[in-house]
Amino acid sequence: MQMPFKILTCLYLPLILSAVLLPIGGKKTLGIRRATVHFDEYLTNIWPLPKQFTSGNLTLTVDPDIAVDVQGPGGSFPIVLEAFERFRNLVFKKQSGYAWGEHDVSKLTIIVASDDDTLQLGVDESYTLYVSDSSEGGGGGRLSIVGGVSIEANTIYGALRGLETLSQLCTYNYKTKTVEVNKAPWYIHDEPRFSFRGLLLDSSRHFLPVNIIKQVIESMSYAKLNVLHWHIIDEESFPLEIPTYPNLWEGSYTKWERYTVEDAYEIVEGVGYPDLWPSPNCTEPLDFTKEYTFNVISGILTDLRKIFPFELFHLGGDEVHEGSFCGYVVIIKSIAGYQLRMLEQRNMTTNDAYQYFVLRAQEIALSHNWIPVNWEETFNSLGPGVCPKVVANGFRCIVSNQGVWYLDHLDVPWEKFYTNEPLDGINDTLQQKLVLGGEVCMWGETADTSDVLQTIWPRAAAAAERLWSPREATSSENLNATVLPRLQHFRCLLNYRGVPAAPVTNLYARQPPIGAGSCFTQ
Amino acid sequence: MQMPFKILTCLYLPLILSAVLLPIGGKKTLGIRRATVHFDEYLTNIWPLPKQFTSGNLTLTVDPDIAVDVQGPGGSFPIVLEAFERFRNLVFKKQSGYAWGEHDVSKLTIIVASDDDTLQLGVDESYTLYVSDSSEGGGGGRLSIVGGVSIEANTIYGALRGLETLSQLCTYNYKTKTVEVNKAPWYIHDEPRFSFRGLLLDSSRHFLPVNIIKQVIESMSYAKLNVLHWHIIDEESFPLEIPTYPNLWEGSYTKWERYTVEDAYEIVEGVGYPDLWPSPNCTEPLDFTKEYTFNVISGILTDLRKIFPFELFHLGGDEVHEGSFCGYVVIIKSIAGYQLRMLEQRNMTTNDAYQYFVLRAQEIALSHNWIPVNWEETFNSLGPGVCPKVVANGFRCIVSNQGVWYLDHLDVPWEKFYTNEPLDGINDTLQQKLVLGGEVCMWGETADTSDVLQTIWPRAAAAAERLWSPREATSSENLNATVLPRLQHFRCLLNYRGVPAAPVTNLYARQPPIGAGSCFTQ
Repeated sequence: MQMPFKILTCLYLPLILSAVLLPIGGKKTLGIRRATVHFDEYLTNIWPLPKQFTSGNLTLTVDPDIAVDVQGPGGSFPIVLEAFERFRNLVFKKQSGYAWGEHDVSKLTIIVASDDDTLQLGVDESYTLYVSDSSEGGGGGRLSIVGGVSIEANTIYGALRGLETLSQLCTYNYKTKTVEVNKAPWYIHDEPRFSFRGLLLDSSRHFLPVNIIKQVIESMSYAKLNVLHWHIIDEESFPLEIPTYPNLWEGSYTKWERYTVEDAYEIVEGVGYPDLWPSPNCTEPLDFTKEYTFNVISGILTDLRKIFPFELFHLGGDEVHEGSFCGYVVIIKSIAGYQLRMLEQRNMTTNDAYQYFVLRAQEIALSHNWIPVNWEETFNSLGPGVCPKVVANGFRCIVSNQGVWYLDHLDVPWEKFYTNEPLDGINDTLQQKLVLGGEVCMWGETADTSDVLQTIWPRAAAAAERLWSPREATSSENLNATVLPRLQHFRCLLNYRGVPAAPVTNLYARQPPIGAGSCFTQ
Repeated sequence: MQMPFKILTCLYLPLILSAVLLPIGGKKTLGIRRATVHFDEYLTNIWPLPKQFTSGNLTLTVDPDIAVDVQGPGGSFPIVLEAFERFRNLVFKKQSGYAWGEHDVSKLTIIVASDDDTLQLGVDESYTLYVSDSSEGGGGGRLSIVGGVSIEANTIYGALRGLETLSQLCTYNYKTKTVEVNKAPWYIHDEPRFSFRGLLLDSSRHFLPVNIIKQVIESMSYAKLNVLHWHIIDEESFPLEIPTYPNLWEGSYTKWERYTVEDAYEIVEGVGYPDLWPSPNCTEPLDFTKEYTFNVISGILTDLRKIFPFELFHLGGDEVHEGSFCGYVVIIKSIAGYQLRMLEQRNMTTNDAYQYFVLRAQEIALSHNWIPVNWEETFNSLGPGVCPKVVANGFRCIVSNQGVWYLDHLDVPWEKFYTNEPLDGINDTLQQKLVLGGEVCMWGETADTSDVLQTIWPRAAAAAERLWSPREATSSENLNATVLPRLQHFRCLLNYRGVPAAPVTNLYARQPPIGAGSCFTQ
């Protein structure tokens, strides 16, 4: 695994919760007056589907003043209480309009077993959620002591996932003006199928304001996606502040389209370093033969290391070509191009020079305790079906097929996102374990603040369920019966939470609804 | 003025503030590295343009801990302090990343002369904004006592408009990490050209969650639009709760797509009143000959009157036709259709029956202290150029030309929105005063949560400046030089504030950017 260089960073997401709009659907069709809207009551509207669950036929009302009781060694982390507050704000989104009085559910117990809050790839995200009338003794098994509504998790991250699920069980009843959980009691034991469930967000092709990125992160948590692959910089622009080289972000589009370190940490001003930008027009590639180049890379990684305390660092490596580049990545990329003209002088092959650069960059990344990640184009010789070949060679793999998981490909419908099975063609159990998960990619050529969220959603949700839920549960032959109504439901949930997810069944992604109608049928 | 009936409600907006991204642009082109982005430093990036203003050449820094000093009889209304907090949150949007130390501006004085907080059409929205170094003695005229930064207004609503303008003068400097006001000192005296500056929002064709409607309202305040014409119900759906007739909202698309009274006040459940919905399939029009029908109308208006304490009530009246209707408006509309079949029996002309209904509906509206408003289709006999004829007849007029101010017409570019002059063809001064203003219309057939904000913005902003700024200031022959860069700037401001306004120069409204690049050039 030796490849060139692109700055990408993986941020693990704390998650954020909520509920409402929940038709816990039926074999018997609900007779909605305006016809055309039918829900299968036997469909479970939790997205993504939990690993195991059972439900009953009770309806419980939830107290708007629901209290939380945190227990266990990990219960005292502030993140748990903060997540509970987000949960409350989502479930009781309306500021008023709730019937007061006796409620079936007035307390939520959260038990977190571990006091280790380390957030890394593979962190335990499992949880058990039990929802019953508080007068009950509690369901069978590990939670029999608790009763009522409880979330039990090994880590705070599992507790957050459980809160998201609980929020999706809560629905506002307009007739009684209460928040309800239908089909109780619920017993849910859940954990993700893959540890890496990512979304690539590209802020180089278009600058995305910090609060838009935050909106994306929050929306990801609703679908239990857990990795934001922030494609901060590319050849089009360098918006990120690198304190060690405070002139780099002169490569931003404008001086108002930047990220400060403080921003998340992100994006300075001045004029490019002569050694990196040899001409004002950025038409000259940079000299990879200079030690200075590698010093700069090291300086950047040192700064980024402080900002992003995570394990993986994506080194890019695709689309290496010559050109007029101004951004940082450019620096790296153009080295590969530049070398083409250096070959004769230096008596190296293209591959020699490329390898030289890649190895040096990798060494630097490793020296910062980062595990380098690369694009599959670096496995050019492997042809299609990359992951099976990668894992057969003993490497770990993250699935991100251009054909089906690139969100900027507007003609790829939700079904193709949904049915992209990461383990297809990998039968060996040990090799299967090398597949860490996958990510959908929101490349930004035609996605800016005005349309990025509706390009991401709802299709990213289809991939999210593929990556979270058991393979058996997502392998139906009849997607239109078992998945589509649930995905439409999840899209309406996103809308209700303020995320402008596009209609599910439009012909191309992010197209407007074709006419008047219910969210649930579009 | 006698026409049929459609439920529409006018909400006057308290406004909400903010700032950032402010290039106070130049005759001298700023040398942005990535080229293609050029700002005219002589353009004033305040949208809409104030009535009168002068500026200097100082740059003042603003203290992140800026304090407010409210004075005058109206200064004690909580809305003023709340608006200041919104201002702070917008101007200091970043949670961190500010240089601390001495700042030029550390206090804002707000003086409100009137203790009358009545919000009605024609309320005084004028304000005077003065921004100088606090060490200065203050500018000439009425504000000479104050110095520093001050907003002086007759009403709290004027103070809010002034805060919005001040927020647009504040820009974050990425190099110094300070919020600055460039081109100070500023002296701005401002007031709107028209008192009615509206946006119609249609939640009948697609249900819009409450928080989306709040986002629209907040974004309107950035452009100083002051009337939300909430088209809550139409023949497609009746999502609104009417306590007096709690079954009406059975006409919603689904039971999750409703508004409770508490929601803003909005949307109940049950089965439609037999007299209003004579068949389960809603195929029969309703009987306008029954007194019960008018009792229902009166009941609805009584309820709405409690919810919306405003002056104007839009009675609709366009697109009267027969059909299968289920919603309330329907009730009204279908009467007009139904009567066609009643004519023979009752020996009335179409016009007789129509007038009878309209007069009854108007009487009811007036009895609730509402001034009825109607669509121009009710002036069918007048043909094109309606407003001049309406005011010539002594009626008041609100401009909303279908050809140029309907936001769902995607092929209408921003220039047509901008150049729609309400007083064209009206030369008599007294008649001009009968033009209250205008509104742009976001009809919802193809606009739902996923795309409504990018369909509204940036084109609604073009109309907003036409309605606010002096006619002379908006009548340039060279829109591409004097207006386009400012509108692009305002669009980026909206994006920065989290409003997904679409690129200004795309071929059709709400289209994605055509390629990578800066927000400021798309």
